[in-house]
Amino acid sequence: MTVSQDVKHNLLTRLRRIEGQTRGIQRMIELGTSCVDILNQIAGVQGALEQVSLQLMERHLASCVSDAVCEGQGEEKIREIMQVLKYYTRT
Amino acid sequence: MTVSQDVKHNLLTRLRRIEGQTRGIQRMIELGTSCVDILNQIAGVQGALEQVSLQLMERHLASCVSDAVCEGQGEEKIREIMQVLKYYTRT
Amino acid sequence: MTVSQDVKHNLLTRLRRIEGQTRGIQRMIELGTSCVDILNQIAGVQGALEQVSLQLMERHLASCVSDAVCEGQGEEKIREIMQVLKYYTRT
Amino acid sequence: MTVSQDVKHNLLTRLRRIEGQTRGIQRMIELGTSCVDILNQIAGVQGALEQVSLQLMERHLASCVSDAVCEGQGEEKIREIMQVLKYYTRT
Repeated sequence: MTVSQDVKHNLLTRLRRIEGQTRGIQRMIELGTSCVDILNQIAGVQGALEQVSLQLMERHLASCVSDAVCEGQGEEKIREIMQVLKYYTRT
Repeated sequence: MTVSQDVKHNLLTRLRRIEGQTRGIQRMIELGTSCVDILNQIAGVQGALEQVSLQLMERHLASCVSDAVCEGQGEEKIREIMQVLKYYTRT
Repeated sequence: MTVSQDVKHNLLTRLRRIEGQTRGIQRMIELGTSCVDILNQIAGVQGALEQVSLQLMERHLASCVSDAVCEGQGEEKIREIMQVLKYYTRT
Repeated sequence: MTVSQDVKHNLLTRLRRIEGQTRGIQRMIELGTSCVDILNQIAGVQGALEQVSLQLMERHLASCVSDAVCEGQGEEKIREIMQVLKYYTRT
């Protein structure tokens, strides 16, 4: 699936912010900021990336997987998304 | 969705094992086993529970969600499963 | 490390509840409860197990690791707990 | 705690790579890459960030927390790192 224009715009805005936060963490390390503050900042980036993933996953289920399901070819698409989910859970 | 007989049997077998492992952890604590060993055992139970979740999620996508999608009512089911996924990722 | 009496009691209470919840999930599967409800119940058990892990980890850091650190032998204990943490994060 | 020069260098190298990967994901979205590929790429960034977190956590335990423990002031530092860990596990 490819994402629609407005979802695209929203995702790109989030990812640019994440990119900026990643640069911010580099500065924190250069400046000798405390580990705990850096760890909390990294946790924030992780949370933001997960929001991006969840948005992509929802779009993927609602378009590509749904289309495949209705054409009787959902099985492979579901297996594919389960592979992704296996990573996103901890197993 | 309700699960089919063989999936049901497989899940129940896994869950009985998980129940047994949970009792095993209680014994470890009673006997004063080292924390690291207990933590590793708990990690094993977490992994086993995640396998159960993933199996259930796959079945749910392949039956209930797929059925709803083909009847043009996938949107609500997808929103519902995304709520579950939000918990299973860390956000 | 082994855990103190009151921590032990608290952990055992939590684990007995987790054991009961695990049996509850088995019943849900036998009765054909909806997947989403079962997934939410499993998520609850996962959360409860994580509380147990975090309590154990805190006790472990505050006793066994701290003792080793003060005796100049913290390095090995820290490596050991990092191995556990590697599992508990997703990597 | 602040991190030593070589740990600093190593962390900065990893974070610059993560920053580059984040830009790569933006390009994937602009180019209309498939969701599954993007999700896998995000998962890779998540894994890389976790490596950074774990390295920072290990340094933090081995220096700042250890120092505090030996000065009889470990309790607060342990509580602080547990707060961070609570985020990094799922609870």
